[in-house]
Amino acid sequence: MSDVLFKNAQVYRDHAFAPADVLVCGGKIDGIGPDLTAPAGCEVVDLAGLSLVPGFIDLHTHGGDGIDVNAATAQDLDKIGAFFARHGTTGWQCSILTDTEEQTLWCIDQAKAAMAAPASGAKLLGIHLEGPFLAPEYKGAMPESLLRKGDAALFHRYQQAAGGAIHYMTVSPEVEGMPEMIAQLAGEVTIAIGHSGADYETAMKAIANGAKVCTHTFNAMGLFHQHRPGMMGAALESDIYCEAICDGRHLHPGSVRMLLKCKGWDKVVAITDSIQAAGLPDGHYKLGVNDVVVVDGDAKLASTGVRAGSTLSQDTALRNIMAFTGHPAEDVIPLLSENPAKAVGLFGRKGSIETGKDADLVVYDSDWTVRRTIVGGATVYQA
Amino acid sequence: MSDVLFKNAQVYRDHAFAPADVLVCGGKIDGIGPDLTAPAGCEVVDLAGLSLVPGFIDLHTHGGDGIDVNAATAQDLDKIGAFFARHGTTGWQCSILTDTEEQTLWCIDQAKAAMAAPASGAKLLGIHLEGPFLAPEYKGAMPESLLRKGDAALFHRYQQAAGGAIHYMTVSPEVEGMPEMIAQLAGEVTIAIGHSGADYETAMKAIANGAKVCTHTFNAMGLFHQHRPGMMGAALESDIYCEAICDGRHLHPGSVRMLLKCKGWDKVVAITDSIQAAGLPDGHYKLGVNDVVVVDGDAKLASTGVRAGSTLSQDTALRNIMAFTGHPAEDVIPLLSENPAKAVGLFGRKGSIETGKDADLVVYDSDWTVRRTIVGGATVYQA
Repeated sequence: MSDVLFKNAQVYRDHAFAPADVLVCGGKIDGIGPDLTAPAGCEVVDLAGLSLVPGFIDLHTHGGDGIDVNAATAQDLDKIGAFFARHGTTGWQCSILTDTEEQTLWCIDQAKAAMAAPASGAKLLGIHLEGPFLAPEYKGAMPESLLRKGDAALFHRYQQAAGGAIHYMTVSPEVEGMPEMIAQLAGEVTIAIGHSGADYETAMKAIANGAKVCTHTFNAMGLFHQHRPGMMGAALESDIYCEAICDGRHLHPGSVRMLLKCKGWDKVVAITDSIQAAGLPDGHYKLGVNDVVVVDGDAKLASTGVRAGSTLSQDTALRNIMAFTGHPAEDVIPLLSENPAKAVGLFGRKGSIETGKDADLVVYDSDWTVRRTIVGGATVYQA
Repeated sequence: MSDVLFKNAQVYRDHAFAPADVLVCGGKIDGIGPDLTAPAGCEVVDLAGLSLVPGFIDLHTHGGDGIDVNAATAQDLDKIGAFFARHGTTGWQCSILTDTEEQTLWCIDQAKAAMAAPASGAKLLGIHLEGPFLAPEYKGAMPESLLRKGDAALFHRYQQAAGGAIHYMTVSPEVEGMPEMIAQLAGEVTIAIGHSGADYETAMKAIANGAKVCTHTFNAMGLFHQHRPGMMGAALESDIYCEAICDGRHLHPGSVRMLLKCKGWDKVVAITDSIQAAGLPDGHYKLGVNDVVVVDGDAKLASTGVRAGSTLSQDTALRNIMAFTGHPAEDVIPLLSENPAKAVGLFGRKGSIETGKDADLVVYDSDWTVRRTIVGGATVYQA
């Protein structure tokens, strides 16, 4: 990849925009400052009037551009990444919906291969297992027959096949064997809790045992009651990160505002939970083993009408949250970059624009439309 | 009343305790500082080893010590105040439960007389009308036949009879004629919203129109759903004050923690919502027109088993919130003094220990047990 000096951008650092040049060498951010000089042979790109923002990281997505993660080959996963790059995402976790052990292992193999190959768009950073250790009562789009009790041996079969690439797993705290299994696994995978009607005490025990994130907060979970605060009370009261699907459908804008007020802007992670229909017209699609119908961009299971993922992309999430809250991009960008990076322990090398970090960068115009996406120093998309 | 110099107390000011002397003259705090000298004829009280705290203000209570506000004469109301003073309360609003117009006017007369008379305990500061403009679906202990649509003329008959002493009124935003009536009345009475299943938009409109408080938050109201945040979402998201009954029964300790986290410690008002059974053994009592059974301190309607007020006192609320949150008294005291005073516009003269303010003071020992209560400069209770 060639080195590039981005000149005259409004660069997002320390939660504010300020004019700066950014030098990218060897896929890393090599320097940030005023009036940087391009080394010999270095391309110079003038970004006057544009903003340079850390690339967004999507911790929870099932696909896009016609491809469903549960049926995706390594090449397909790369195609999803290319689609995401057009929408401001530079890194993502593929969320494998609960499936048969055989199919899950196949998905893991594909993801492993995609992670090892060069990316033509957003980089696949790791695997998110959404299940199979989930509560039937809050299964959402999970096939009930495939849900399992806590089974660390099964997880370890998956993790061994993945060569350690399973970085994130959603479990229900009330499933038999949890939260003990959480204590056992928290050191080797980021545990998210969700798809759950756990009582408050069980949810808090899961958190005490090491759960770090709440999966698509408020969706597919037991809600708050003043006598039984439940999963929702535990997610709000504790300091875990809270995923939020900010498409205006999964969460009322007031729910997003309340979540941000309660958790703080440093603990909310804006994910898409997108499915293969993202970026495509309304119609009939798949989500794992399920048939999904998308009407007016709203994805629901054909069988039950239960909402099943979104058609959201992260650039739209940025604009939505700005609209919902009246806050400027400065406040919203961490929800899509810094916070997800911190939630999965990647902030040392991703999630902000700092010297030494991976050159995962996105150029926006004043309407917050993506103009250029850079992944590991290489421009993978230009409007 | 005689002047008093309180020496050597740990005095609560600016949310912290520090050693100081406090001089009380003419019912007011006349000086605070180190080594104050008693004027001639001034009593001197040594409070070494004790804490001096602003008197608590209970915005919402239906009685105590065997007396029900809806049946209380002016003398009875004074007896309630004497009971409250033993528990750290120096000022209170009597909450008149929805009743017939005739009975409500009688209650108003009694309250007016009690407010005009010298108090032998906590001072009756004003009237809280809990109803009649409430939603039948969330009536709690309100007799449904007596609930009314929005009727500003009826309120004004009450307010005229009270000579302006109705300082606080709980209404349901979804009742016909609300929230327009809120806009009309917000200048002359503090509007609290509650007993309500209002949708989010209606609740937010009530707040925009001037509602300032949420009545016994989470109790007798529509709870949050991610698509329909409702009254609960509006109460949490907005900056209105939130009443909270911290007896461990109305709210799970986790609910109290979540409320404090979301609203901030400056927006929660710890009320008792106590009934005549407060301070008395288990047994059969009245709450307005209702029969109430108290078992193990828990008050419920005899007819339906619906919880009906509490047997809480404010000194117990202080200790409960300290236990629920692990926070010291320094953090909790404002919930019972500064915040209620601010919510009803009394902070200019009550709710903190400052020169010029009313000498409403409570002396606590190190176990947070009340040792002495001073109302308007006069000691009304000593342990």
